[in-house]
Amino acid sequence: MRIAQLAPLAESVPPKRYGGTERIISYLTEELIRQGHEVTLFASGDSETQASLISVCRESLRCDESVSVPEAYLFQSIERAFRIASKFDVIHSHVDFLGLPWASRCTTPVLTTLHGRLDLPELLPLYALYKDQPLVSVSKSQQAPLAHANWAAAVHHGLPRDLYRFQEGGGGYLAFLGRMAAEKRPDHAIEIAKRTGIPLKIAAKVDPTDRAYFREQIEPLLDHPLIEFVGEINDAEKQEFLGNALALLAPFDWPEPFGLVFTEALACGTPVLAYDRGAVPEIVKHGTTGFICNDLEHMVEAAARVSRLSRTACRESFDEYFTAERMAHDYLNLYEQLAERAFVPPLDFAVLP
Amino acid sequence: MRIAQLAPLAESVPPKRYGGTERIISYLTEELIRQGHEVTLFASGDSETQASLISVCRESLRCDESVSVPEAYLFQSIERAFRIASKFDVIHSHVDFLGLPWASRCTTPVLTTLHGRLDLPELLPLYALYKDQPLVSVSKSQQAPLAHANWAAAVHHGLPRDLYRFQEGGGGYLAFLGRMAAEKRPDHAIEIAKRTGIPLKIAAKVDPTDRAYFREQIEPLLDHPLIEFVGEINDAEKQEFLGNALALLAPFDWPEPFGLVFTEALACGTPVLAYDRGAVPEIVKHGTTGFICNDLEHMVEAAARVSRLSRTACRESFDEYFTAERMAHDYLNLYEQLAERAFVPPLDFAVLP
Repeated sequence: MRIAQLAPLAESVPPKRYGGTERIISYLTEELIRQGHEVTLFASGDSETQASLISVCRESLRCDESVSVPEAYLFQSIERAFRIASKFDVIHSHVDFLGLPWASRCTTPVLTTLHGRLDLPELLPLYALYKDQPLVSVSKSQQAPLAHANWAAAVHHGLPRDLYRFQEGGGGYLAFLGRMAAEKRPDHAIEIAKRTGIPLKIAAKVDPTDRAYFREQIEPLLDHPLIEFVGEINDAEKQEFLGNALALLAPFDWPEPFGLVFTEALACGTPVLAYDRGAVPEIVKHGTTGFICNDLEHMVEAAARVSRLSRTACRESFDEYFTAERMAHDYLNLYEQLAERAFVPPLDFAVLP
Repeated sequence: MRIAQLAPLAESVPPKRYGGTERIISYLTEELIRQGHEVTLFASGDSETQASLISVCRESLRCDESVSVPEAYLFQSIERAFRIASKFDVIHSHVDFLGLPWASRCTTPVLTTLHGRLDLPELLPLYALYKDQPLVSVSKSQQAPLAHANWAAAVHHGLPRDLYRFQEGGGGYLAFLGRMAAEKRPDHAIEIAKRTGIPLKIAAKVDPTDRAYFREQIEPLLDHPLIEFVGEINDAEKQEFLGNALALLAPFDWPEPFGLVFTEALACGTPVLAYDRGAVPEIVKHGTTGFICNDLEHMVEAAARVSRLSRTACRESFDEYFTAERMAHDYLNLYEQLAERAFVPPLDFAVLP
């Protein structure tokens, strides 16, 4: 198929630094190419891809201080994609609701994946207005605040099969990996380590907005023989960090729309300890690939039992459900359904004489 | 004519507080109604107008802390306007470049007034991409950074004729009116007062971002018998503040796209002392309605001579060039030109089969 992928411009595809959306677009794009599809990627000029790359800016925008109005570039990128819409069988938009005005006036089918949280009251009437436009969530749970929107599917994220390899978890520690933010509950992770006596390694970036929290709430807790703070780690370091861990200790206390880190752990054969929030129950099989806990007490108890779980079962779950191949397969199904549908002018007011 | 006015939602129309764009939209809308046109105003629900008001939000958004993504409402407002575009002879957009994707896919002509500064590099390629869309600036000088954009005209702002009345300027002081910001050069105003021996009254709001500047740079200069700091004043207080002044002392050191305060002063019969920046030469007639100065020395000298200018000439200049009536007349001319133009599908890719 001829497929356009429309990416945000804040980060390159894949991102040089943090950027879950741009990572997923990269995995999907390269997998579609590998399967022989013709993909055009609309993304920042420092992106790296086998697809045809169309860029309106040389650098990704998050770090470009000369840009005051990033939307001016994003509008250009979207406009350029839609001006050549007839060259594509489908346009896959990852730019949130920003692409909908174009999509609802375009005869090429458009699929929009919403990557972020949707529990904002101003979004309800907006998506109601664009109810003709098919949306994809990255988990079923993400749909809850917008239950009546036009959901075509929930498509879980996937990682390249060989991005992480199976390891035996011989390090004997629990691994915390995430931003150093209050809602990730690193304080719970530390408490669990102290109560179980199992060592904890914390790999976390400290964003400027989280610095006060880190200094005041977390740093005083780090001076303990069981706790090691290793700072921010890069993708290459993740393999050893996760692969050697007994378990991923992820006491996150907010409804993460997906949670890539859970699937990264599973790919390494590492089970997951997490609270019952957001997409967790869709990713972790309780009692098989980890434990889904109700509270801190429960997680303390689960941490003591987690080494009994089969690491092979974790990797098998990854191979079956969380590869880029599976993700591309799901999206291709949706692309084909949309492309086959007889064309109906999407909004009658958009039909020119 | 059947005219849609598409306003931002940050402030109501007219604004409860600061909001030059929303004020002008209000003046234009009410004047068009007065002249018998059928106007539909897309604006926040707390707007007050004789037009038909269509609102997607009850309150203006600047002060509504429950809204995280104001664009979600703005997109709804724009979408609603364009879905009923065929009911209008023209849509007049004041929402910056945000309306252009809709405008370029719409058969009803759209006129876009750009109210802000345009000297941002990311805007050049954006407006080049939308080169079919007619733009209006609020002064000729504002066009300079985007000289090759599709300018239909420069239309100066106008105030309702009776909003301010002529006064004799008997207060014997110079008036500074504006935000307390470094680029407005209140320090120059103070220096000029001290060197000429003419009293100065400063009416200025201190925004949170300008507090440090005010405390460190300006407050130490205020303790002087010639200087009086009166704080923020409302619209009603402006009449006395400007009308009793010898002159408006406006040593602003940035290219203001227009500068409503100059016309407010003229309406009161008060001449203007300003630097040669932005739209100043289009508003102030040097030697007649004020003095346009090159530097501080020049302005000191001009301040000493300003009481010799005819206040009647100032008011006459206002009556001729800066009323809402004149502004509405200019816009109506543009609306009519656009509406009469034979329809050409604006962008061929937008034409549905």
